[in-house]
Amino acid sequence: MSDIEIAQQANMKPIIGLVKEQYGIDAEHLDPYGHYKAKMSLEYVNSLSDKEDGKLILVTAISPTPAGEGKTTTTVGLGDAMNRIGKLTMMCLREPSLGPCFGVKGGAAGGGYSQVVPMEDINLHFTGDFHAIGVAHNLLSALIDNHINHGNALDIDPRRIQWKRVVDMNDRALRNIVVGMGGPANGYLREDGYDIVVASEVMAILCLATSRADLKERLGRIVIGYKSDRVTPVYARDLNAQGSMAALLKDAIKPNLVQTLENNIAIIHGGPFANIAHGCNTVSATKTALKLADYVVTEAGFGADLGAEKFIDIKCRMAGLKPSAVVLVATVRALKFHGGVVKEELNQENLAALEQGFENLERHLHNITHHYGLPCVVCINHFTFDTDAEIALLKQKCEALGAQCVVSTHWANGGAGAEELAHAVSDIVDNREPEFNYVYDENLSLWEKIEAIATKLYGAGSVTANAKVKAQLAAWNADYGKFPICMAKTQMSFTTDPNAKGAPSGHVVEISDVRLANGAGFIVAIAGDMMTMPGLPKVPAAERIDIDDNGKITGLF
Amino acid sequence: MSDIEIAQQANMKPIIGLVKEQYGIDAEHLDPYGHYKAKMSLEYVNSLSDKEDGKLILVTAISPTPAGEGKTTTTVGLGDAMNRIGKLTMMCLREPSLGPCFGVKGGAAGGGYSQVVPMEDINLHFTGDFHAIGVAHNLLSALIDNHINHGNALDIDPRRIQWKRVVDMNDRALRNIVVGMGGPANGYLREDGYDIVVASEVMAILCLATSRADLKERLGRIVIGYKSDRVTPVYARDLNAQGSMAALLKDAIKPNLVQTLENNIAIIHGGPFANIAHGCNTVSATKTALKLADYVVTEAGFGADLGAEKFIDIKCRMAGLKPSAVVLVATVRALKFHGGVVKEELNQENLAALEQGFENLERHLHNITHHYGLPCVVCINHFTFDTDAEIALLKQKCEALGAQCVVSTHWANGGAGAEELAHAVSDIVDNREPEFNYVYDENLSLWEKIEAIATKLYGAGSVTANAKVKAQLAAWNADYGKFPICMAKTQMSFTTDPNAKGAPSGHVVEISDVRLANGAGFIVAIAGDMMTMPGLPKVPAAERIDIDDNGKITGLF
Repeated sequence: MSDIEIAQQANMKPIIGLVKEQYGIDAEHLDPYGHYKAKMSLEYVNSLSDKEDGKLILVTAISPTPAGEGKTTTTVGLGDAMNRIGKLTMMCLREPSLGPCFGVKGGAAGGGYSQVVPMEDINLHFTGDFHAIGVAHNLLSALIDNHINHGNALDIDPRRIQWKRVVDMNDRALRNIVVGMGGPANGYLREDGYDIVVASEVMAILCLATSRADLKERLGRIVIGYKSDRVTPVYARDLNAQGSMAALLKDAIKPNLVQTLENNIAIIHGGPFANIAHGCNTVSATKTALKLADYVVTEAGFGADLGAEKFIDIKCRMAGLKPSAVVLVATVRALKFHGGVVKEELNQENLAALEQGFENLERHLHNITHHYGLPCVVCINHFTFDTDAEIALLKQKCEALGAQCVVSTHWANGGAGAEELAHAVSDIVDNREPEFNYVYDENLSLWEKIEAIATKLYGAGSVTANAKVKAQLAAWNADYGKFPICMAKTQMSFTTDPNAKGAPSGHVVEISDVRLANGAGFIVAIAGDMMTMPGLPKVPAAERIDIDDNGKITGLF
Repeated sequence: MSDIEIAQQANMKPIIGLVKEQYGIDAEHLDPYGHYKAKMSLEYVNSLSDKEDGKLILVTAISPTPAGEGKTTTTVGLGDAMNRIGKLTMMCLREPSLGPCFGVKGGAAGGGYSQVVPMEDINLHFTGDFHAIGVAHNLLSALIDNHINHGNALDIDPRRIQWKRVVDMNDRALRNIVVGMGGPANGYLREDGYDIVVASEVMAILCLATSRADLKERLGRIVIGYKSDRVTPVYARDLNAQGSMAALLKDAIKPNLVQTLENNIAIIHGGPFANIAHGCNTVSATKTALKLADYVVTEAGFGADLGAEKFIDIKCRMAGLKPSAVVLVATVRALKFHGGVVKEELNQENLAALEQGFENLERHLHNITHHYGLPCVVCINHFTFDTDAEIALLKQKCEALGAQCVVSTHWANGGAGAEELAHAVSDIVDNREPEFNYVYDENLSLWEKIEAIATKLYGAGSVTANAKVKAQLAAWNADYGKFPICMAKTQMSFTTDPNAKGAPSGHVVEISDVRLANGAGFIVAIAGDMMTMPGLPKVPAAERIDIDDNGKITGLF
């Protein structure tokens, strides 16, 4: 059965009753969105502040491959398994974007028997958060061009506007556009472009904001561009945009509650890109879950070099979160891909390739334990084609490194398939005092922070950049020197070359551009071409998605 | 107090319980969106098909002026008043667009003590319908450019694509754009543009669709442009887009229920532009309300020459609806404006100007009773500055025409202020057999239909068009000859000149362009410049809208 077929057979319970049953929360604190989704009021979220926090467990992965690893699926499977073994556990996930749904990737609500439901709703609009983010972003865009049209009192340099427009769709034709055509009634001609909504700084801001006041303050300090002197920033607050933008986000700021196939509560809230943004669900979701549950399982985008690093250096640092353990997800197929096997041959046993590809896992494991200072359990997300010999080799190699390696079958068996993983993880978090390190000290210069990430985690020999980039970073040190770095690098490799599999060392990381995300509060360092607006494939998923006369959806994977 | 302050003091009842109390509908048939908004399941809507219909009452107005008339306010006031006098009445309204909220016009949920609530929610995102419509539209846009990018097997002429993109924002810079810049990875360069979401044909389609199957069929037959032979249409179904688009509209198709300040149920569903589209709420909302209530009060956009005409010739004709009476809303101020008074002097008594401006009302009244064949009550929406002499003159002039004229104070007094109007209206609909006429027969040629509208309703002497427009209409007669006409003309005047107030006669209506809205099922005839993407004013409302730390919104009018 496909994911959507499994999801449609789910025995969902009305969410309001389920939240009451499991967490004792009264209906008045929840806004229902249909019978199976709800938002939690911020007043209730704030009322939890004196409660003790549960333990935070991060699910991350090896460097992603086309073979798929299953971070979300493992997060759900582990959460269900924790609840099965009597540990009250809530999951925190990212909201899916519509773009990939209609493109190649499909939905993003877990897979097999480890899913969050209602799957169609979560993938299509959900509670409207992304639409609110998109329109808040585009309101600021409209205000910028409107300001210039009406006389440009702020002296904005139309050539130096860095605030683009966004749409939640994969639409390559919008990457680079010209706006304002057709004469004086339509404003001033200038170059512009669209990003996908998940790449919006408003998304990153919403995910890092800790209150309505913090949200509005962050929105107001967004740098939309520069004045004609080329250096004086123009802020969103100069356009009086932050009040309206925050009003548009009035509900988007509230965490969303849904359930897994096994009727455990998951919060799905926020979904920033993991390249030019930090790739984690909202701080408010994670903090709320920690107040409510004894254990919280969450995920971060891409591999442990990008998602986990940003989770730790950006999200945990800003929000004062302390993770207790990490689960590093890998598949036999993906490791063989890192060992040089082509996609078509991944279902054949290949111990040599597996051994070679293991280098990738080893590097991530080392980063997690050594540089983040966190205990790590390796989870092999089991596929039908994995052979006993491959599993044995993998376990042996992990054990040689002193790491626990658990084979988990939650995709096929739900929480029951991840009980061993749940025991392994809870043994750690119940018995070890949490202790972890950031990868770099906030007092380093911006350049030194980039070097720390690249040399420590990526195994790079050096970091380079042209004079302009270096000068820009040096100039930002004065005002934004305490900001963390958000590395925008291919997720497919430790290098900047997506084809360099395994665990290369000594390579050069070239920073081609840097961007100030002043509202989010980080500096984006771009290494290589970053795609902030995906395109659709020749035959997009949109062509097969359908809905019948009774409202049943098919073709959504 | 401002509208939002009045709305925030409303004594709202939880919508699920209220719908149960007033209409006996069980919670299982409703999807709550928070505690005060709900969508009704289509299964429940369909289950009502054998019930007898209530009576349908249309609220329309004189030609709009900057002075404001108050159609929505009167619709709500009349509905509340009908319920007060013991007539079970439901209201059907259009959903507001975000663009005007942040521009000049402000919100659109009634005013004073005749409002629907929760006002902030209704104006900001509501249940997400417009976002779903926008993204369904933009998915088709992305699929078009993607198809061309991947080889253009359908031979779409990139210069003849008529399917633009949409955003729910007033953003003049997007009216005319160039997409596909930046080299081969970004597709093919071409001219494009953005409309506001309410101008999308998807909006018109959703509002006219009678079932999920009908919705999908209409989406599939959208003409997105033409092949390189310049004449062969390319349909959305050629791109296999209709299934995904309909899936994105899975919830948008369900009617939304809210309440008035006096706790009566209103359905707010759909909101197509009243110029290039037909300007009425969804057919499904109106039909559902007619099954549930004994009386349904609804509104149509702009004045009775545009909104009411399209309500009758497009919506009622397609859906088989039969209105029983019309309320024609006017204000003393607006009539004085039509009589030549400038906006700043409208609060001063001016009987001569009132008498002169009355011509506008008289023409609309004549059209309603003579051409639509419907009984009509004139409602004077009372303002503080109206003098007794002005009211007396107005009543006398209406009576001279054999028309009832009721002064109504629902803005200040809620339903209690519209009881006389409610009695007048219910006397008519309870005692007269409904009987009405379309303005033109569906078997007339497209050109004859345009002539019928312009000469009968606008008082035009003739209709002209260049040879290209005439040839296009003649060509469409073969395949689309039965389609009704959707006139896109300024709402400010019976002529095509927005400054020609009152009731001019013998003027020429020039049709500058015609468009095929094949999914909606009408031909748009454009007379004059039509704005399908508004701009923001120098100081937009967005600058004053704010939200405080507790989530309370201010500045939204």
